Amino acid sequence: MVTDIREKIAAANDEVASKLAASNPVLVDIQAAGQVVPGLEDRMVLHSGPPVTWQNMCGAQRGAVMAMAVFEGWADTPEEAADLVAGGQIALSPNHHHDAVGPMAGTITKSLPVYVVENQAFGNTAYCRLVEDRQQFGDYSEEAIHDLRMWRDVWAPSLAKGITHIGGLSLKPIITKALQMGDELHNRPNAATSLFAGAMSVPMIEAGVSKDDLVSTLSYVTGHDLLFLGLAMASAKSAADSAANVEYSTVVTAMARNGTEFGIRVSGLGDQWFTAPAPKADGLYMPGYGDADGGLDMGDSAITETVGWGGFVLGGAPGILPLVGGTPEEALAYSREMREITHAISPDYLIPALGFQGTSVGIDIRKVVQTGILPIIDTAIAHVEPGHPIIGAGLVRPPLECFQNALRAFAVKYNPG
Amino acid sequence: MVTDIREKIAAANDEVASKLAASNPVLVDIQAAGQVVPGLEDRMVLHSGPPVTWQNMCGAQRGAVMAMAVFEGWADTPEEAADLVAGGQIALSPNHHHDAVGPMAGTITKSLPVYVVENQAFGNTAYCRLVEDRQQFGDYSEEAIHDLRMWRDVWAPSLAKGITHIGGLSLKPIITKALQMGDELHNRPNAATSLFAGAMSVPMIEAGVSKDDLVSTLSYVTGHDLLFLGLAMASAKSAADSAANVEYSTVVTAMARNGTEFGIRVSGLGDQWFTAPAPKADGLYMPGYGDADGGLDMGDSAITETVGWGGFVLGGAPGILPLVGGTPEEALAYSREMREITHAISPDYLIPALGFQGTSVGIDIRKVVQTGILPIIDTAIAHVEPGHPIIGAGLVRPPLECFQNALRAFAVKYNPG
Repeated sequence: MVTDIREKIAAANDEVASKLAASNPVLVDIQAAGQVVPGLEDRMVLHSGPPVTWQNMCGAQRGAVMAMAVFEGWADTPEEAADLVAGGQIALSPNHHHDAVGPMAGTITKSLPVYVVENQAFGNTAYCRLVEDRQQFGDYSEEAIHDLRMWRDVWAPSLAKGITHIGGLSLKPIITKALQMGDELHNRPNAATSLFAGAMSVPMIEAGVSKDDLVSTLSYVTGHDLLFLGLAMASAKSAADSAANVEYSTVVTAMARNGTEFGIRVSGLGDQWFTAPAPKADGLYMPGYGDADGGLDMGDSAITETVGWGGFVLGGAPGILPLVGGTPEEALAYSREMREITHAISPDYLIPALGFQGTSVGIDIRKVVQTGILPIIDTAIAHVEPGHPIIGAGLVRPPLECFQNALRAFAVKYNPG
Repeated sequence: MVTDIREKIAAANDEVASKLAASNPVLVDIQAAGQVVPGLEDRMVLHSGPPVTWQNMCGAQRGAVMAMAVFEGWADTPEEAADLVAGGQIALSPNHHHDAVGPMAGTITKSLPVYVVENQAFGNTAYCRLVEDRQQFGDYSEEAIHDLRMWRDVWAPSLAKGITHIGGLSLKPIITKALQMGDELHNRPNAATSLFAGAMSVPMIEAGVSKDDLVSTLSYVTGHDLLFLGLAMASAKSAADSAANVEYSTVVTAMARNGTEFGIRVSGLGDQWFTAPAPKADGLYMPGYGDADGGLDMGDSAITETVGWGGFVLGGAPGILPLVGGTPEEALAYSREMREITHAISPDYLIPALGFQGTSVGIDIRKVVQTGILPIIDTAIAHVEPGHPIIGAGLVRPPLECFQNALRAFAVKYNPG
């Protein structure tokens, strides 16, 4: 009966939304991915978005994969790396299949330290790599790879010492504060980064990190406004995964792009991806670059919108508008619009500019299809070719097709009659 | 001729507003007030607001003066301290007569370290004491005085080592960023404090501050959201003083209260105070306190509104509203209203929520009297009696009488015909 299935869906979505809202992300460690990420094999590169073959992979993600092969010492040059992947000697797998996420190209390999975020409300763990503005955009230059080495050899181990010294750093209080300090936690995690720097300084000192490493690591953290995006993504992934696989739920648990396809997952539909060609961001380009240079949308970072941050809280983060475009009024309108396609409101994450209303939680595929209102996503823009750093930023909406396909699959699974 | 004087006023106000806007505050040291504050004598307590006698001093400010006498060792008990001041053995003088400012009771004595902020655009220097939530509200308990001792013995010297190591810390970039992170820099300087903590950690480490002092000082800075108010006040005072004493200017260069009177100074009218009885804040009280407990408005902190921060940028700082009351729409309306009584717009301090318009600069006493619109000030509330910590916070407007009296004096001085 229709009434029966509607009630089951409502109950399932209540459960999913309350799990998303009650999640309690705690940074418990920063460890080499090979030591912690489930299913990550030796010669394997994890990437953002739904599954994709090397043949279909976009230029920027190819460039990032090549950089990782050089970083790991599997190849001496980006060209050699490309040959190894093309020849099947280096495997590719989506981050999302390994409890992980990564910004832009999203590449993770065994030696790269990842944030280990435990959702202490539900016991699951999620992983995210560092954020930077070169290699993750497909830049395979020595300079781009140098930052990954500093992260591996100095910054990640120093931070890890501080984190383990205090037995883990609770991220929910930082996220709560940052959302009241003009952050949307995707393209603008400035306040959260600053609060994180403040929270880590004393623990690193107390843990006995050497003076040189302390200076290098605190200079890195305090000089890198985007740092917390990696922690926001791991927090969001840990929440989304705890809410996955709830039978009958029509709520989205992942939105991710690989620069070729945009894919979503839905709680009641398990691990299946519903994909469509990736859109192009409506954005602003850095000097020297234009629309013709911009690749299609890429990155697992839309996991932040999946849990109600990023574009969904743009109204509370007008400081980001020079980067992505638009007016404060439009930003508030986006945030109000997202109410139309979500299931609940967070009791903890409050937005002052919206009169301390909570963030919108739980994108309902039925509401998206019925209203035609698509989630609004803050994003950055990578080059269409490999070998470039960041070239722009903007706003993007997923293809409606992803939601339509998911809704059809939902009907087939739950209402075959 | 009327035309002639109007042109002179316009030119003078242009000069004053451009000085306020172009000021460049740099924290160059933190030093014992007795070493740096001009005219501060041995047994003297500087206080907030216009001049006031011990007999007319409000309860909270009396309590704070008594605490300082105990802190300095001039008296063993608050009661003994009160007798010394009443007997004329301890002198009282307004901060503003010594290039200084202080929050709430504002008390400064020789051993108390003060922020030394140099306005490197114009060469003048301003001083402000630390911000805390006990002694400056009139609390003379051991706990209240303990914090002043920690500041004198550990925190101020450690920060000073870091500051001198880097040759001074430029505050304008921090203020600029903080105004785009939901701060209004008076009751809510959270982002600025966090950025300041980030800016000081590496310099203190490099300067060789001991591990214990480093841990204590970084814990203090990262655990004290209001810390930057002291730096915002010193910055504002350094700007306001550089714009003082410009003949023919009708722009306000100080607004200050001692809990008995509210006083303003005007650039073209030199050091003269125009006073009226202090108003009472329209505010929210902490549990256990109510309107009957609240003293009249107090503190030099309205120097932040004098240069266009605080209540003037409430529209960009909705995170403060649970503390002072009101809606985001009202906050935006306050900020727009302040345009009506100010002379210019800052080219550097931009408010994202107002479409990146600059802050309002230069309160014109003519516009205040003509429109009847009074400056809006964020404030905190002290108890009517000595011996209490903070009891509330809210919004307040100065008495119109101050502006009317100033305008009359202006007419007498510049247009005696």
